[in-house]
Amino acid sequence: MRATLMYEAGDVRVEDVPDSVIKEPTDALVRITASCICGSDLWPYGSMPAADDPVRMGHEFIGIVEDTGSEVSTVKRGDLVVAPFAISDNTCVFCREGLHTSCGNPHAGFWDGMPEEGGQAEATRVPLADGTLVKLPVAADSALMPSLLTLSDVFGTGHHAAVAGGVNQRTSVTVIGDGAVGLLGVLSARLLGAEQIILMGRHQARTDLGRDFGATDVVSARGAEGIEAVRDLTGGHGTHVVLECVGAMPAYEQAVGIVRPGGVISRVGVPQYEQAPVGFDSLFGRNIRLAGGPAPTRAYIEKLMPAILEGTIDPGRVFDATTDLGGVPAGYQDMADRKTLKVLVKS
Amino acid sequence: MRATLMYEAGDVRVEDVPDSVIKEPTDALVRITASCICGSDLWPYGSMPAADDPVRMGHEFIGIVEDTGSEVSTVKRGDLVVAPFAISDNTCVFCREGLHTSCGNPHAGFWDGMPEEGGQAEATRVPLADGTLVKLPVAADSALMPSLLTLSDVFGTGHHAAVAGGVNQRTSVTVIGDGAVGLLGVLSARLLGAEQIILMGRHQARTDLGRDFGATDVVSARGAEGIEAVRDLTGGHGTHVVLECVGAMPAYEQAVGIVRPGGVISRVGVPQYEQAPVGFDSLFGRNIRLAGGPAPTRAYIEKLMPAILEGTIDPGRVFDATTDLGGVPAGYQDMADRKTLKVLVKS
Repeated sequence: MRATLMYEAGDVRVEDVPDSVIKEPTDALVRITASCICGSDLWPYGSMPAADDPVRMGHEFIGIVEDTGSEVSTVKRGDLVVAPFAISDNTCVFCREGLHTSCGNPHAGFWDGMPEEGGQAEATRVPLADGTLVKLPVAADSALMPSLLTLSDVFGTGHHAAVAGGVNQRTSVTVIGDGAVGLLGVLSARLLGAEQIILMGRHQARTDLGRDFGATDVVSARGAEGIEAVRDLTGGHGTHVVLECVGAMPAYEQAVGIVRPGGVISRVGVPQYEQAPVGFDSLFGRNIRLAGGPAPTRAYIEKLMPAILEGTIDPGRVFDATTDLGGVPAGYQDMADRKTLKVLVKS
Repeated sequence: MRATLMYEAGDVRVEDVPDSVIKEPTDALVRITASCICGSDLWPYGSMPAADDPVRMGHEFIGIVEDTGSEVSTVKRGDLVVAPFAISDNTCVFCREGLHTSCGNPHAGFWDGMPEEGGQAEATRVPLADGTLVKLPVAADSALMPSLLTLSDVFGTGHHAAVAGGVNQRTSVTVIGDGAVGLLGVLSARLLGAEQIILMGRHQARTDLGRDFGATDVVSARGAEGIEAVRDLTGGHGTHVVLECVGAMPAYEQAVGIVRPGGVISRVGVPQYEQAPVGFDSLFGRNIRLAGGPAPTRAYIEKLMPAILEGTIDPGRVFDATTDLGGVPAGYQDMADRKTLKVLVKS
């Protein structure tokens, strides 16, 4: 079968690999029908050292169950399923609290880092299939496929940012980043009732989509100028919640500058730093809270799916390009060049 | 009048200074009857450069109103009052949200840093008296004075740690630090219903008081060994909430090690660092939240006072020494040497 491998920064190839097979009684084998390239895939695409072994790519996919291990009971051959970007048993103490990314099962973990499986491929083995996979009540050729695919990561991640930030009808919100997660952070903040949603981004096609999703204001300036612009829009105070959907240090610093005293910076962009300012002058003095982390998207799939099925929201609009598996390497480059926002891969 | 001045690290003097007087129509002049030395006073006592000008000390006090400006209406001459460690108008948008430490009034701020006023003195001018001062329904010689004095800072600060950490009946709690704030963090966690409260400290007289206040376990080990001990007490997971009541980097690192995935580190110890680890390996990967800041103790005085007046709690037990104004310099040294937990100053 064919699958996507990253060899080093800038070098992504689709190659023949050994067929995925069932290994554990809790596994399912899934023939992938739709996957995509993630903004977080661009971090190693920009920095992976050549010395490392190639890694399998892809952690967002929909597919058809082809086979199941003896202990799998919630999905069966022929089911159309969506997989979140973290593998979990959905039964441990952390999963029951909705924190599937901290699942305590020894087979749990992230697709990224699994040695021989991944979503940008023809098929994959899915560990802990009962906990991980969620059945979709549509056909594989449904027009809703792009929106349903966002449940695996970007919609759930934007939603997690808003939930972890405590967004509600009484909070003003700034979203830093006009990538797919940022835009779906806007949509999530609107669904949670926020009235003022300021989107910080400088790519007009994206910020226009952000306005469609519910942004009330767009700030294209960055740094000190961007902070000033947000303060001007909020009576000088900043917003109650800042959704930091980038992960770079300048975005963090921007968040510190625009969050209101007593407010929350909710991070879902994977931090490209370990140390950051959190002392008296940045967070402590103003009682700013820091929240967020890898989104337990599994916890949100059943909650977010009905509005997609009803057609009242269309998060799949973040996909502005579609390719097949052979087009994945070019898809990476287009996303890195910001020619495309997010690439859907039809297998 | 006499007042306490710090000249440099290790050099605290009680000297004659110009009498405090009313300057603004919103001021009150308060004759101080009881004040105290704070754990946070020990940071400059350990590090203040000799090159700086001497500073007035003291931000926790009870006293009798001696005079009021023309606009003061909630307190009058002869009232016994307690002052929180932050000056606020109690009416601005942040005060109404309970965040008095971010009061937007131009006269608001912390006692620490005010050039000519302070609590370790015979008297002080109190800006924004209507907002800052709270009348006490007892006489100045009441036996409740030590407990009522804790409302100005240490009790409200311990309470803020627990509130900002989201402590309730379903959360397990670790308190790092056996100083007065840590011990009152224990008491606050118990009042909020926490069933498991682990106190980390190595000074037995203090941890014994912590047990009286509600600690269910005491861990005297620090660092990796202390983290291991807390994990052993919590099924390997750590506690839902960690109250970090010290402010030093080793305490922060300890908090990161013992907080449960999805949990909260709530800081009220003034951070002696600006940068700290917050990336994937410390906070982000496990969805750990960081909360806390300078406690808006003004917001908590009316809430915490009734149990003191009823005698059901006795937070004043954190005072294990009493002196007069002349004994303040020795009080600093005794607290720095950890001979005393907290010194009450009778003026």
